Amino acid sequence: MSHVRFRDPTGLVRMGDWSGEEDEEITTSTKVYDPAAVEILPPSEPTKVICQAGGYIDHREESGLGDVPDRPELFLKTPNCVIGHNDTIELPPDRDTIEFEAEFAIVIGEQCRGVATDEAMEYIAGFTCVNDISNRDDQSDERNWVRGKAFDGSLPAGPVVATPDEVPENARLTLRHNGTLKQETTTEHMIFSAEELVSETSELITLEPGDLIATGTPYGPDGLSAGDVVEVEFEGVGTLRNEVTER
Amino acid sequence: MSHVRFRDPTGLVRMGDWSGEEDEEITTSTKVYDPAAVEILPPSEPTKVICQAGGYIDHREESGLGDVPDRPELFLKTPNCVIGHNDTIELPPDRDTIEFEAEFAIVIGEQCRGVATDEAMEYIAGFTCVNDISNRDDQSDERNWVRGKAFDGSLPAGPVVATPDEVPENARLTLRHNGTLKQETTTEHMIFSAEELVSETSELITLEPGDLIATGTPYGPDGLSAGDVVEVEFEGVGTLRNEVTER
Repeated sequence: MSHVRFRDPTGLVRMGDWSGEEDEEITTSTKVYDPAAVEILPPSEPTKVICQAGGYIDHREESGLGDVPDRPELFLKTPNCVIGHNDTIELPPDRDTIEFEAEFAIVIGEQCRGVATDEAMEYIAGFTCVNDISNRDDQSDERNWVRGKAFDGSLPAGPVVATPDEVPENARLTLRHNGTLKQETTTEHMIFSAEELVSETSELITLEPGDLIATGTPYGPDGLSAGDVVEVEFEGVGTLRNEVTER
Repeated sequence: MSHVRFRDPTGLVRMGDWSGEEDEEITTSTKVYDPAAVEILPPSEPTKVICQAGGYIDHREESGLGDVPDRPELFLKTPNCVIGHNDTIELPPDRDTIEFEAEFAIVIGEQCRGVATDEAMEYIAGFTCVNDISNRDDQSDERNWVRGKAFDGSLPAGPVVATPDEVPENARLTLRHNGTLKQETTTEHMIFSAEELVSETSELITLEPGDLIATGTPYGPDGLSAGDVVEVEFEGVGTLRNEVTER
């Protein structure tokens, strides 16, 4: 099952079932909606977004992130980062290099802390696509990546939350930039599994329902310009599509 | 004027006026409360906490943070960090060095982005005390300080929000550890002013009402142990007091 948060034509925020395909309807317990007639919202309202840096070996190598660590490297995004499917990515002003990073994210289903890896799936509501938009001008200059990673609109997420049973083993993650395939991997290339990421992040930090854990990007992040269209597709979830404009 | 968030004896969350002194009453428009009979809550419910690293030269030197930067160095804390006056600081398990850091924080009053320094005061609701509890075991090992800075309960805040007129120029900031003075400075030693911090953090990040900007600590952070009492006092705000236990 895949769930969508959306604003209906009267302005109310609703939850429905939706495949993420534009030609299929959104259904709630009482109504049916054309996805083109509603506003698709971010799939959850996280209190925080915990991100993994260098979760794939090929991206560690291209980015000079160093040897494979014995535990996940983490950084943070904040609620102001989160935008939805079809929302516009606004380029921060006066910066040269704003890049896409295809990822999938874990959506937390229940409050938890100190979760063991073999119990982590109990706390995972599902998975969604995210695009970890990165401001390299500032990131390269910062000890902690705040201006570089936590600027407004820097985490498109969606279109739906797919429950874990919807996502196959070794699911495919891809990114298309103006229609051209730029990033491609499968989850078998992850250094740490989704369950390990929930366990590691929850050791010292209480995770809340709707919190996102962005699992890292594979090889191939590249620059965005105004007018671009960027699409992150994760097998079992669907395609997150966003256009880019100047702020 | 100084404002306090508190839970009254019936369990309702209220706002009142309070000096922060235990022997003075909390007043609302209709009632008067003994502070000992209510639960003092964190002074706001931030969507994010933006922190400055190395905002005082003496702490930059003792921590090896390098030359004075041309703009503030930032890092993030998350809502799970925030606890209130009189709440207990729980030491993360299996760590050797958990330290206090006396700071004052800016409390944002209105949503804002792209604020000029000379307009920043319009968006500041007031100031509060915070203690930037830091887990050095993990911080020293992390590129981005997440386990090191964003663990549960790592930002005691309070006891009140004092409006800017309550805080004198060159206000004194101190920390007492089990009654002994350990940190002491005044705001004239800050590298960047509160207004500059609002302007810098809001350039790329929308600030929301209740968001906190922790302004950095002066010389002298030191280790905490179970049973300790730690008090941060900021002139015009009052004293934030917390005890320490094992988690």
